[in-house]
Amino acid sequence: MKVAYKIWFENNGKAFGEGPYALLKQVQKTNSLHQAAHQMGMSYSKAWKLTQTLEKRLGFVLLDKKVGGLTGGGSQVTPMAIDLMKRYERFEKDARQAIERVYRKHFGGR
Amino acid sequence: MKVAYKIWFENNGKAFGEGPYALLKQVQKTNSLHQAAHQMGMSYSKAWKLTQTLEKRLGFVLLDKKVGGLTGGGSQVTPMAIDLMKRYERFEKDARQAIERVYRKHFGGR
Repeated sequence: MKVAYKIWFENNGKAFGEGPYALLKQVQKTNSLHQAAHQMGMSYSKAWKLTQTLEKRLGFVLLDKKVGGLTGGGSQVTPMAIDLMKRYERFEKDARQAIERVYRKHFGGR
Repeated sequence: MKVAYKIWFENNGKAFGEGPYALLKQVQKTNSLHQAAHQMGMSYSKAWKLTQTLEKRLGFVLLDKKVGGLTGGGSQVTPMAIDLMKRYERFEKDARQAIERVYRKHFGGR
């Protein structure tokens, strides 16, 4: 037997978690919400609506959208989004270790 | 913002968690899987199938079913189910506190 979990942050609904983190990570790699959505198996409109909703719930902007230009537009994660992602990585690692520890304490050896 | 989570145990699929715990708790109160299912807003057949699946995944029996008799049958949680429920209660409390602590560490004051 093993322990499994999902953790997310809420503020009038889901504000951040594993899925949004993965999406932002893809934007960071590709500088494109289009490509990031595609790689997540998500439609662009769904990814766009998601980021709008998250930004509202978080209270800050996650993506800088550039319309047109030489490179045909694109999206970049904002410094605040990068800070959130870094905190989330450390949070997730600590939470995973804490949950495993608590599980072993009460169900060790099962 | 606040942290939210779901935690469960797996062994070839979900083996125990919040829902099964609540169902067993109701059986303990009512000595009836029929009544427990009803109070959980679940059909009897669904509750019965669920306990069968959980027993298979956990590897031990959760309910002693009494067929007929003076009181018209009923279900009682087994000593091993009671032990599981007690461990789960302590696990859940510790896990909640650990997650809150880790959240405050990385997102305190937000």
